[in-house]
Amino acid sequence: MDIKISIKQIAQDAQLAARKLSRISSLEKNKALLLMADELERKRNFLLAENAKDVALAQKTGRNQAMIERLTLKDATISGMAQGLREVAALPDPVGKITSMWRRPNNLLVGRMRIPLGVIGIIYESRPNVTVDASALCLKSGNAVILRGGSEAINSNLAIASILQGVLSQSTLPLKAIQVIPFTDREAVSAMLQLDEYIDLIIPRGGEELIRAVVAQSKIPVIKHYKGVCHIFVDAQADSDMAINICLNAKTQRPGVCNALETLLVHKDIASEFLPQVAEKMRSAGVVLRGCEKTRSILKNIEAASEEDWYAEYLDLILAVRVVETMDEAIAHIEKYGSLHTESIITNDYANSQRFLNEVNSSTVMVNASTRFSDGFELGLGAEIGISTTKLHAFGPMGLEELTTTKFIIYGNGQVRT
Amino acid sequence: MDIKISIKQIAQDAQLAARKLSRISSLEKNKALLLMADELERKRNFLLAENAKDVALAQKTGRNQAMIERLTLKDATISGMAQGLREVAALPDPVGKITSMWRRPNNLLVGRMRIPLGVIGIIYESRPNVTVDASALCLKSGNAVILRGGSEAINSNLAIASILQGVLSQSTLPLKAIQVIPFTDREAVSAMLQLDEYIDLIIPRGGEELIRAVVAQSKIPVIKHYKGVCHIFVDAQADSDMAINICLNAKTQRPGVCNALETLLVHKDIASEFLPQVAEKMRSAGVVLRGCEKTRSILKNIEAASEEDWYAEYLDLILAVRVVETMDEAIAHIEKYGSLHTESIITNDYANSQRFLNEVNSSTVMVNASTRFSDGFELGLGAEIGISTTKLHAFGPMGLEELTTTKFIIYGNGQVRT
Repeated sequence: MDIKISIKQIAQDAQLAARKLSRISSLEKNKALLLMADELERKRNFLLAENAKDVALAQKTGRNQAMIERLTLKDATISGMAQGLREVAALPDPVGKITSMWRRPNNLLVGRMRIPLGVIGIIYESRPNVTVDASALCLKSGNAVILRGGSEAINSNLAIASILQGVLSQSTLPLKAIQVIPFTDREAVSAMLQLDEYIDLIIPRGGEELIRAVVAQSKIPVIKHYKGVCHIFVDAQADSDMAINICLNAKTQRPGVCNALETLLVHKDIASEFLPQVAEKMRSAGVVLRGCEKTRSILKNIEAASEEDWYAEYLDLILAVRVVETMDEAIAHIEKYGSLHTESIITNDYANSQRFLNEVNSSTVMVNASTRFSDGFELGLGAEIGISTTKLHAFGPMGLEELTTTKFIIYGNGQVRT
Repeated sequence: MDIKISIKQIAQDAQLAARKLSRISSLEKNKALLLMADELERKRNFLLAENAKDVALAQKTGRNQAMIERLTLKDATISGMAQGLREVAALPDPVGKITSMWRRPNNLLVGRMRIPLGVIGIIYESRPNVTVDASALCLKSGNAVILRGGSEAINSNLAIASILQGVLSQSTLPLKAIQVIPFTDREAVSAMLQLDEYIDLIIPRGGEELIRAVVAQSKIPVIKHYKGVCHIFVDAQADSDMAINICLNAKTQRPGVCNALETLLVHKDIASEFLPQVAEKMRSAGVVLRGCEKTRSILKNIEAASEEDWYAEYLDLILAVRVVETMDEAIAHIEKYGSLHTESIITNDYANSQRFLNEVNSSTVMVNASTRFSDGFELGLGAEIGISTTKLHAFGPMGLEELTTTKFIIYGNGQVRT
């Protein structure tokens, strides 16, 4: 009960802060972001000491090594966070931008102006750098943020928040623009997700399990992607070398992320030439293949892919492979088993490249490029607050603009409606 | 149980239809819309006969006169529906539009392309013309639509759907692009609102009660506005004649709609001159005023406004009036009591006009114009599928573009990530 009241207070404070923050100029926001970068670096030892408490507890409670790595702050991580703040300061401010403006026959001048969404709740797991990244992007776009990180990072997150708030308290910006929820109980998340009166958007960042739990409970709109089952379709007219290079990059450059390749679709006309070549390179890179019957008639020593494999986001050095009769069959496969994340066609056939771009309605669709480019930075958004694989509000990687909406503004000179 | 299975079938059919429809050219969609207009006019007598059944039942069951009027189709209503279809055919198609495109340093060409949302559910009350309007806008924007009108209009809605589907069946467009739910049970709506796997967006159109019931049950995103508590702030530097003219238009031109004026805020410096003039005109137009203490010290014979009056959407010839000390007080009043719909300032002070436009974050903010212009047609969107007063996805009147999203498209020539 106490927690519920505290969380509600946090949300109400955030809403008031958001109203003030929406009126703060870019200059003032950028000044604060640059000061925050300096302060993080200046208070490096304090941060490392607080982080060490989290790491010690994680080791004592037997957390796995991967998690402890994500949790641990190093000198380089802190410099990276500071650098991130400086980069966000350098990005153009979306707030106040007039996206279009037009004159009506009655002489009304009508335009659309970008404004912040209001209050954004971020729910995430063990990486403390998310606390800085998300704070920076929300602040820059004029939104108040409520951060709920993993319980295992609580000391690190509170330390970061105290530094960021220290800067806010010495500026014209509202102190409650950045708040970290100090409770590690699950109840705190549940309470937060009921407060649709104060919080405008929830962005969960983490594994599918975390995201499903958030969606199941939330009364607030959630922007999310559950998983990335990314496909590459190697067309009959593909350049084999390019196809091998791209497939290898998409699968192995960083297999544990959502834009990594999970299923390879190969046109039957190129399969018997292409599959042995790509299979050899994949094997050398430590990738295990699982194939359809036709694939296995060409590559003798691989396991059969089951129905579940076509739906799988391995996040690992495993690749499902299927031979298709036509591009239509490839598109139908993507529609049935895909996750609307990212798909790429490798082809030199002009008509097929256009058809693939037009007909595949995933959030990112590519010709002759690695799926690994599906990322806010790589696409040129300057930042990434998350990825959406649902179509409402944002679809695909989300940058600063996706943390805003537009209002209509109208300049009149006495017009009335008749 | 039978109804649940049928509704699920309708939703699955709609999803398949949406995938086909997303690939249909504007030419083909426009051809179908024009044929639908012709067919509605050609089958006028059939429509009137089916509608007469609904009207007879409504009269027999003692429905109120306003509802029977909204329900009744006349020759002019049918011509209006046909005209609406022809106008939608003439609008530009948002689907396939490249909203922006840029080159990355690695030579990737990245763009954003508009695509349909998928399947849209419309839940509405007695007006059968919504069946035609919503079908036209969804079809044009490449979305399949599932229509759930009021039970009192079921014969009219099924008759309209049979005509529209007759056209679809003779075209390349998928037949299930337009479906009317044939069940009048409430259970049908509840079942529909659970199908987030197949339906992408719900737009409820009707009174606040209907909308709240939909939001409470829906697992699917809902775009909505509960009410329009629209404000006009008459600033100290206002032109009195212009202010009177605009206030009168905003309150009385059509008092029963969401963009009508509900609360008038008047700067103290102009109140004693302005209030008696506007009060006289309002009284002549049959408007009853309710005022704050200061208003009542100037206008002697009016009732006191209670706290509830400031929150009220009267939809009637009643106007709440408050005298404010400053523009800040007016903005604070709008923030506290407003509904984020539409607000207008009447002023000749340049700085105040700019501050009002920048600082009031309602979905439509105006200078020197009537709130009645807050409407998709009047703002130049060419259409209106609804109004949103929540900030996610759309904010304010929604046209065809708001029924789409964008995907990223990428033209590469072999790029991989390093």
